[in-house]
Amino acid sequence: MARYSPSVQNLISKLSDLPGIGGKSAQRLAFHILSMSENDAAALAESITEARRLTKRCQCCQNFTDTDVCPICSDPKRDTSVVCVVESPRDVSTFERMHEYKGLYHVLHGVYNPMNNKNMNDITLSQLIERLQKHTEIKEVIMATNQNVEGNATALFVSRLLSPTGIKVTRLASGLPTGSDIEFADDLTLANALKGRIEIN
Amino acid sequence: MARYSPSVQNLISKLSDLPGIGGKSAQRLAFHILSMSENDAAALAESITEARRLTKRCQCCQNFTDTDVCPICSDPKRDTSVVCVVESPRDVSTFERMHEYKGLYHVLHGVYNPMNNKNMNDITLSQLIERLQKHTEIKEVIMATNQNVEGNATALFVSRLLSPTGIKVTRLASGLPTGSDIEFADDLTLANALKGRIEIN
Repeated sequence: MARYSPSVQNLISKLSDLPGIGGKSAQRLAFHILSMSENDAAALAESITEARRLTKRCQCCQNFTDTDVCPICSDPKRDTSVVCVVESPRDVSTFERMHEYKGLYHVLHGVYNPMNNKNMNDITLSQLIERLQKHTEIKEVIMATNQNVEGNATALFVSRLLSPTGIKVTRLASGLPTGSDIEFADDLTLANALKGRIEIN
Repeated sequence: MARYSPSVQNLISKLSDLPGIGGKSAQRLAFHILSMSENDAAALAESITEARRLTKRCQCCQNFTDTDVCPICSDPKRDTSVVCVVESPRDVSTFERMHEYKGLYHVLHGVYNPMNNKNMNDITLSQLIERLQKHTEIKEVIMATNQNVEGNATALFVSRLLSPTGIKVTRLASGLPTGSDIEFADDLTLANALKGRIEIN
């Protein structure tokens, strides 16, 4: 890259560390920031430090929150007998957007991925176990980790771990996306849809 | 969007104001920032304010720089008789990456775009005229604005404006990209390539 001042170079490098931002986008964002008013740039910077400073993990579900216990965990209308275990806080937003699920969540902040140096201590598994021991009203754990090798391995691991406790461990159904054409389904998805077929009543 | 704390909501909204960052990417970036260490988040915020604070426009070419006159304008090895007029600082980087052009630049910071409320006073046209009057060694102005309606209009406007001065005003060649197949060329590009055909010597 040609002749940027050190501060601009530093900004570009910091931006390109963000997920999904390559060198070119980082450059584009940096130049946009340079053309902002100094107040607007300061407000953007402030929003980063403020959000990070005020955000902590919910003592109960480990989701990001600005209170000790997050609004979902402290909502008396939620069904406290079900816990949906997800990989990231973004997954909670996705579930909530659906307006169908009324139970609670547990955010793992990752999955078991030995290839990526993520082991069971890097995710919030011990907090989940502790929570299940403390809150005996929990009757079902829905493993909603992603449908890939790591997500499946984590789900299997948790289900084995919980089998002595008698808590029901379920996994989200795997199959054809709604509205999709069978013609365009990949082999694995189709095989899983076949394996998981259900009786029509 | 569901149940974000005000500070996170603010971060997401600030990020989605950036070019090329939609709602979903903003959310993804925000959650990444929340999972960074507080020091790393502070360093990112700092890089924004620092770059913006230290960056100004070059007194000569209007490109972003941290000195009064940018390194290109103050480089004695550059050819001061040619000025390449571009829309944005990013275009300067693109030209410099090529290592072919040895002249100077002038950054318009926009184009003439009446539909978008950008008129001639919003771009650095008066600074260009002033520069040409002051630096009589400039013999050629290359209009390297983008190959679209606004870029062409701006190029035409500048060439008319400069016609009494005797300064040569040129435009980058418009035609088929190198390595491209004629089969896939769009009609306008092909028409321009035909119109601009040159004799083979």
